[in-house]
Amino acid sequence: MSVPVTISIDAMGGDSAPEIVVEGVRMAHERLPHVRYLLFGDEARLAPLLAPYPGMAGVCTVRHTDEAISNDAKPGQVLRTGRRSSMWLAIDAVKKGEAAGIVSAGNTGALMAVSKFVLRTLPGIDRPAIAALFPTIRGETLMLDLGANIDCNANNLVEFAVMGEVYARAVLGLETPAIGLLNVGSEDMKGSDVVKTAAATLRESHLPINFYGFVEGNDICAGTVDVVVTDGFSGNISLKTAEGTVKLYSTFLKEAFKSSLMSKIGFLFARRALNKVKVRTDPRRYNGAMFLGLNGIAVKSHGGTDAFGFANAIGVAVELVAHGYNERIRKEFDRLKPANVPSPQLAAGTR
Amino acid sequence: MSVPVTISIDAMGGDSAPEIVVEGVRMAHERLPHVRYLLFGDEARLAPLLAPYPGMAGVCTVRHTDEAISNDAKPGQVLRTGRRSSMWLAIDAVKKGEAAGIVSAGNTGALMAVSKFVLRTLPGIDRPAIAALFPTIRGETLMLDLGANIDCNANNLVEFAVMGEVYARAVLGLETPAIGLLNVGSEDMKGSDVVKTAAATLRESHLPINFYGFVEGNDICAGTVDVVVTDGFSGNISLKTAEGTVKLYSTFLKEAFKSSLMSKIGFLFARRALNKVKVRTDPRRYNGAMFLGLNGIAVKSHGGTDAFGFANAIGVAVELVAHGYNERIRKEFDRLKPANVPSPQLAAGTR
Repeated sequence: MSVPVTISIDAMGGDSAPEIVVEGVRMAHERLPHVRYLLFGDEARLAPLLAPYPGMAGVCTVRHTDEAISNDAKPGQVLRTGRRSSMWLAIDAVKKGEAAGIVSAGNTGALMAVSKFVLRTLPGIDRPAIAALFPTIRGETLMLDLGANIDCNANNLVEFAVMGEVYARAVLGLETPAIGLLNVGSEDMKGSDVVKTAAATLRESHLPINFYGFVEGNDICAGTVDVVVTDGFSGNISLKTAEGTVKLYSTFLKEAFKSSLMSKIGFLFARRALNKVKVRTDPRRYNGAMFLGLNGIAVKSHGGTDAFGFANAIGVAVELVAHGYNERIRKEFDRLKPANVPSPQLAAGTR
Repeated sequence: MSVPVTISIDAMGGDSAPEIVVEGVRMAHERLPHVRYLLFGDEARLAPLLAPYPGMAGVCTVRHTDEAISNDAKPGQVLRTGRRSSMWLAIDAVKKGEAAGIVSAGNTGALMAVSKFVLRTLPGIDRPAIAALFPTIRGETLMLDLGANIDCNANNLVEFAVMGEVYARAVLGLETPAIGLLNVGSEDMKGSDVVKTAAATLRESHLPINFYGFVEGNDICAGTVDVVVTDGFSGNISLKTAEGTVKLYSTFLKEAFKSSLMSKIGFLFARRALNKVKVRTDPRRYNGAMFLGLNGIAVKSHGGTDAFGFANAIGVAVELVAHGYNERIRKEFDRLKPANVPSPQLAAGTR
């Protein structure tokens, strides 16, 4: 039996909050009965959503607040004026130890800014990164950063590599996960100075990491490595390119199946098989971007997801808690203290 | 009837050269009977490949050379020692006016370096870019740069926008093509300083361009704009991510259709429809990356493509020639001379 875990929820974040949020919590509750929830938001709207489900009363506590962060609010503005918002209070519950992690489908920039401000980064980590799993031919690959850090230096990339490596061991259960650095070619001479310096550090620093070397965009879905490290600009573009390509392919498929009587009959026979493909590439299954490197678990759900997707994001947070990700990464960075590591980049710590 | 056009071919470039190159020329000849070819390479190997096709004698001229550029040759080394190579001589034929464009499936870095050295950039253009068409839900979108320029400043991106815009008008025949700048969000405040400055220039410079604003990775395949502008690092990663995602999706499909008797029957009925999807997403159909901004037409074929793909790359070069792309871009940059344009970036010209 699992130890009870409490997750705090920004019930007002997301395009269809609080409705899909509450429905997502209900779906997560079915899968993860040991999890408790602190729901931050407008009690007058939350109570009627919870009322039809008596089982929810025992696992959900509503903490009322009038304020919510809008999708177009700027992070700086939220930091100045958002302290009473559902998002801020939900994050604060992690800081206070009332919850083991927080999930929000709200404004990404604000969520990252407030999480960083309230929770702080883990010792030795300069910048947190956004990480998520990608489906691949061989299984799943973790990729980071997906958009938290637009400009990265080599040290940031090295830190992301360590954070991703620990995730792959702690949560995915891999013994010696292979780490790749995303680049425009696999040869040493290719790429920007930043990726070349990061690669040199990963190769020469005696970090206990199985560094594969450079990988290219097509290696992500090929599953060439277990963790793909990149800056937030390229990572975000790559993630969204993949999403757009899946949409293109499935649109082409739909059109093709409608194009003749034969193909319509084919569709009827192949429907179950095609559904499997839909499930395997369903972005909702991969919903839940992790903010790694913070002194607390924070997970961002897609703003436009449905309850199924939101429930998956909760699952991602619970997994990080259950595998003690933050304790593992803390230990890892302790091991990597200046005395033990010859890398000037990593040794420089939180510049 | 079309005016005769001569294309020079690096017959020794690519993974399976010269076999697939000659076969590609033969396929292109069937589709484009008005095109003549100058084939640079080892005559002893080319002659027997051409011999079985008597029709080819009238359209192909072989220019012998012993030397070829290997795939792992470094561009700097090729610039110093590659003057007698098939690649260099093929490019030189364009410089000399013997050919209207050159196609090579060889080493990309070397091809760009030698093309730039021999052909030079067009007046007013700082750096050439690699451009290619993407299939989209709405048709096709041009994207550039795909890997020629790892580090770009705002001025480079503005030049790419102009080059792409002219392509969309001249070759795709669009009246006022929409140009988007690839970024991690569509809001003005998002992204790196480079993209923000480029966007400001495109918005405020009175360039005769229909600037849509920022687009995200998923907008590429959605066909949100006609031209997507980005730096070579993100562009290359995005292109290869899309290729990898198509491969993933088609692998999932294959597995699904093999998973049961029902789905196998479904496959038989839907085979023709599925084949259509395969054709629409076939990377060979999109083979032929254009080096835009050079004082001459140069097209890079994928190194691992087959004859069908190589023939498409020839088609891309012939299209650029037929639509007078370089004359159009030259006129466009003449119009944009310092006196006519208030943009300090573009006015600075070839810094």
